[in-house]
Amino acid sequence: MISREKHDRMANAIRFLSIDAVEKAKSGHPGLPMGAADIATVLFSRYLSFDPKKPDWPDRDRFVLSAGHGSMLIYSLLYLLGYDDISLEDIKNFRQLGSPTAGHPEYGHAAGIETTTGPLGQGIGNAVGMAIAERKLAQEFGSDLVEHYTYALAGDGCLMEGISQEAISLAGHLKLDKLIVFWDNNSISIDGPVSLTDSTDQLARFAASGWNTLDIDGHDPDAIAQAIETAQKSDRPTLIAAKTVIGFGAPNKAGTSGAHGSPLGDKEIAGTRKALGWNEEPFVVPSDILDAWRLAGLRSVKDRKAWESRLAEAENDIRMAFERRMNGDLPGELEPAITAYKKKLADDQPTVATRKASEMALEVINGVAPETLGGSADLTGSNNTRTSQTKAITPDDFSGRYIHYGIREHGMAAMMNGIALHGGLIPYSGGFLIFSDYCRPSIRLAALMGIRVIHVLTHDSIGLGEDGPTHQPVEHMAALRAIPNLLTFRPADTVETAECWQIALEQGKRPSGIALTRQNLPTVRTDFTEENLCAYGAYDLVSASDAEVTIFASGSEIEIALEARRMLEANGHSTRVVSVPSFELFEEQSPEYKKAIIGDSRVKIAIEAGIRQGWDRFIGTDGLFIGMSGFGASGPYKELYEHFGITAKAAVKAVEARLHDEA
Amino acid sequence: MISREKHDRMANAIRFLSIDAVEKAKSGHPGLPMGAADIATVLFSRYLSFDPKKPDWPDRDRFVLSAGHGSMLIYSLLYLLGYDDISLEDIKNFRQLGSPTAGHPEYGHAAGIETTTGPLGQGIGNAVGMAIAERKLAQEFGSDLVEHYTYALAGDGCLMEGISQEAISLAGHLKLDKLIVFWDNNSISIDGPVSLTDSTDQLARFAASGWNTLDIDGHDPDAIAQAIETAQKSDRPTLIAAKTVIGFGAPNKAGTSGAHGSPLGDKEIAGTRKALGWNEEPFVVPSDILDAWRLAGLRSVKDRKAWESRLAEAENDIRMAFERRMNGDLPGELEPAITAYKKKLADDQPTVATRKASEMALEVINGVAPETLGGSADLTGSNNTRTSQTKAITPDDFSGRYIHYGIREHGMAAMMNGIALHGGLIPYSGGFLIFSDYCRPSIRLAALMGIRVIHVLTHDSIGLGEDGPTHQPVEHMAALRAIPNLLTFRPADTVETAECWQIALEQGKRPSGIALTRQNLPTVRTDFTEENLCAYGAYDLVSASDAEVTIFASGSEIEIALEARRMLEANGHSTRVVSVPSFELFEEQSPEYKKAIIGDSRVKIAIEAGIRQGWDRFIGTDGLFIGMSGFGASGPYKELYEHFGITAKAAVKAVEARLHDEA
Repeated sequence: MISREKHDRMANAIRFLSIDAVEKAKSGHPGLPMGAADIATVLFSRYLSFDPKKPDWPDRDRFVLSAGHGSMLIYSLLYLLGYDDISLEDIKNFRQLGSPTAGHPEYGHAAGIETTTGPLGQGIGNAVGMAIAERKLAQEFGSDLVEHYTYALAGDGCLMEGISQEAISLAGHLKLDKLIVFWDNNSISIDGPVSLTDSTDQLARFAASGWNTLDIDGHDPDAIAQAIETAQKSDRPTLIAAKTVIGFGAPNKAGTSGAHGSPLGDKEIAGTRKALGWNEEPFVVPSDILDAWRLAGLRSVKDRKAWESRLAEAENDIRMAFERRMNGDLPGELEPAITAYKKKLADDQPTVATRKASEMALEVINGVAPETLGGSADLTGSNNTRTSQTKAITPDDFSGRYIHYGIREHGMAAMMNGIALHGGLIPYSGGFLIFSDYCRPSIRLAALMGIRVIHVLTHDSIGLGEDGPTHQPVEHMAALRAIPNLLTFRPADTVETAECWQIALEQGKRPSGIALTRQNLPTVRTDFTEENLCAYGAYDLVSASDAEVTIFASGSEIEIALEARRMLEANGHSTRVVSVPSFELFEEQSPEYKKAIIGDSRVKIAIEAGIRQGWDRFIGTDGLFIGMSGFGASGPYKELYEHFGITAKAAVKAVEARLHDEA
Repeated sequence: MISREKHDRMANAIRFLSIDAVEKAKSGHPGLPMGAADIATVLFSRYLSFDPKKPDWPDRDRFVLSAGHGSMLIYSLLYLLGYDDISLEDIKNFRQLGSPTAGHPEYGHAAGIETTTGPLGQGIGNAVGMAIAERKLAQEFGSDLVEHYTYALAGDGCLMEGISQEAISLAGHLKLDKLIVFWDNNSISIDGPVSLTDSTDQLARFAASGWNTLDIDGHDPDAIAQAIETAQKSDRPTLIAAKTVIGFGAPNKAGTSGAHGSPLGDKEIAGTRKALGWNEEPFVVPSDILDAWRLAGLRSVKDRKAWESRLAEAENDIRMAFERRMNGDLPGELEPAITAYKKKLADDQPTVATRKASEMALEVINGVAPETLGGSADLTGSNNTRTSQTKAITPDDFSGRYIHYGIREHGMAAMMNGIALHGGLIPYSGGFLIFSDYCRPSIRLAALMGIRVIHVLTHDSIGLGEDGPTHQPVEHMAALRAIPNLLTFRPADTVETAECWQIALEQGKRPSGIALTRQNLPTVRTDFTEENLCAYGAYDLVSASDAEVTIFASGSEIEIALEARRMLEANGHSTRVVSVPSFELFEEQSPEYKKAIIGDSRVKIAIEAGIRQGWDRFIGTDGLFIGMSGFGASGPYKELYEHFGITAKAAVKAVEARLHDEA
């Protein structure tokens, strides 16, 4: 048992490491670690199940610092608990270039940082996703292998962001009873008291979404402990509203926004040391306190070892499946299954929308890869993301493999990040490409973290027709291509769709977005290739020696490009067609390959039913572009293509005018 | 008084116009208009204050169809009520190219469509913004000129989207008592029953945010009427949960997702006609019912005329100010004030961050333009959006000119759209550029609608330093530049910042985003020009005849460009520097101007602390680029610039290597 006196000193160790690190960096947020130190101390020293020496123990409890600006809380904890990745030196190098102790917690910088946070509200979404993954895997592998809690610490900002509503309402609906969220209820935001901007009764709000709610003094260790124990026994997710004082202990700044986001300053720090009875030099933790923390770090070693024994004793196929899944390795059956499917496509040559082609590919994938976890933001029938294998998960039955995420794109994407971060599952979503805007912050975080989530983005151009410009993406491919480390795909037919799916699944370290059509398209890859041609990013779909004209296109505009080619060839112009399913993969090819693909045709033209931005890479700034320059319109899609001049005829006309000019 | 029998037939007129239009278009959403027809009939025939012949009457009640897929509801109403812009022919051309009756309601297509909706949840945000504008203008001009209600009709999807939480929590906090939201509580979404995805007690949720809540049968006209009257008297915003049956009257599809988003089909339509006793041919409204609707359209003529008399009788300066403001004309004092300010800047040449330069410009602007309504998403001190004139609005006092929006970027942007749509105010926000991702759907809608909202986007690159990659925009300028009809700015100093602000204010028909630095920058426009050079989008900051090298740059990288130029000139390379504050404005210049600015230097190089995407327009695909190719990092900003090679030295090295290669 930890005495109150020891608790206070353990919590103060967090406070002063945080204060000192922020002060040394001359930058950072001391207020949250000071305010939440008591919560963190109780949770990490008495309840959280983890092992600093085996930080990737799959059945550890997860902890998400949703209020990521309080990063020094987690860095202090990781150092104190004995994680190897965060040394005292790292704490001293807080917010310095190359240090793992970045301004906000960055996934991958150090074990123990379960997710990248900072953009507010994201962590709550991640935590819900982790709790979903836990329950799903517990259902699949049994509680011997998977049974842990997911904790999050959220601030007022997290709760104000709309994404929190999406996440908590689904968590409540799904009765994620192993999810426990602390609300660091300090009543302060950057502009001043929260009362400047909000009067929400948060307990009532969470209760309205089916949560268990508790209201405690966040500086009372016994109350914190009791709340955790109550929450652990709840049959619903729990919000623990913990009333805290931001900058706890600072004589003048405590309880004010002055403690939030800047160093306290020498004088205030001296006052805080005095007020809290902490007489150590900066960065010094008394050895008895460091020992107490290190001891806390050893608390779950026995549990971890027992778990390892259970895994070792599990049936061979279960153990191997579990290990494969947690390693993120794909099943060996996947590649041959896709090859066989591609062979069949070359025979059948179906004309279907690529959203349907995606469903067909998923039918193959889901048949051999039990780790895929599908879903849609209430567009199942439109996104075609549900296959015969994917029964829906319900609050009372997690044996399914499909999540009805509801009309919650942003929450869905953040939850998917949490599912991927947990491990053992590959989440893929369903949504309209236009609504990638709604979940862009979470897609960006997936790219920044380098995690495998796959976004199925249907209705990918004016080709969706009558729903009109509010639903027609014109700039979204460009906007997604702008995000570093995100793979974007826009396949042209059934074969390319299968290939893009295969590549997306094979990316252990980055997210993908696959843009798909609503309208039907012919299969253009009529010759079977075992090789995945989409992996080149861009490739010769129709070659021509000494091509006078090269047409670059993607997705639904490949059909137009092929038609334009036929017309140009008929007029005596040797024409090549390059399919460009993925800009990013093309950039990763050798300089020689890229040069060859770009080629030296007299006329280069790109066709995509979106804006030009980005296409100059292929056609040069003097190249021709057939696409959109503004918003779409409501009408039958064939009329829209005519109206906006995205036709083979328009392409041919532009090419021949250019050839004429140059002649 | 309208009898129940007449009410039913009036509502059925909406239902069958909607059914028939969707059927003819073979596309659309009949379910909502059928389910919400009773609500709409009571509201529009008995309560909503408007005049179809003077649809821009400033003091009309506003109605927002947040569930925009139910567009036929509003088209039916506009036709029935006698608005000139929607004829029966237009109804028959629902969802056809060129028709005002687009798939979703498009602002500007017809009077009476107060906002563009379809992306769910946006309309609730717009409605909150309109209610804010109403209360603000009522405070300013008195209830003689401004006193009206704002109504919205929201679906389950609107309430599931996170943006709704941001909007309703601020509305509750601000006690927007003239805001009345109907929730079309039909328990159906696209994937099936709402119970698939949600168990939220919406009444409790809204009550938790300080709303008055009412629960009624949405097919009982008396209950609807009574609820509206109760809501009108409330001292808080009101949610009327109206239990409805989607596809009301359809024998097989009513109450199912089958009624939501596709034509009912001949047989089901015949059954619906029978069930509802509607024996008319398609698109035929019996003359007594059309008369009843047209009469309803005349209901507020007297009120409108009385209002016009009050306006005519108002004091001259009040009347003129009101008319100017509602017309969206800027005050005549603005231009000379900015010119005088620019003159002063040329004398003072201050070195400040452009976020500070923005505050300085705003101090001038807010001093002469009382219509600006500032704000920030809880980053007031960081965004520098508050000036001496802008006291904060509070729930009990709307005399201020500043809104603490809270940590609600998405809601803020949607509310700003509503404020702009209402008229009489020019909303500008404050946020970090990185969080433009959070509000991107609303920014896009502002661009699609063509309305004047101005987003202040500070901390615009790795220059923000220690907060790290979660907070460092690298792709955001490219992503914003991709949105059609959005003006983006990245000014380089105090003078450019003032000029960009002036241009943004002068845009009556499009939104702007101004990217601003956290770090200090010197004033580089040291020679006073009365002319607004930023209006060219790109211009010669430093000319050179027969320049061997042209450096294009924006914002904080202009300082680096000028330093590189000095170094290159010292090495004997004639070098020109082009400042590029706005890509979009540059594209609007004459071909000759653009050609001259691009020029024909042997080496073209662009410098921007973001990704290259879009810059090829200036430098060509073989041009040199100094910027970012991936995410940023946490550290002091000067070190980051060094680390990522965004320095004058790196630019000079690249240029000289290229000159050497070419020599």
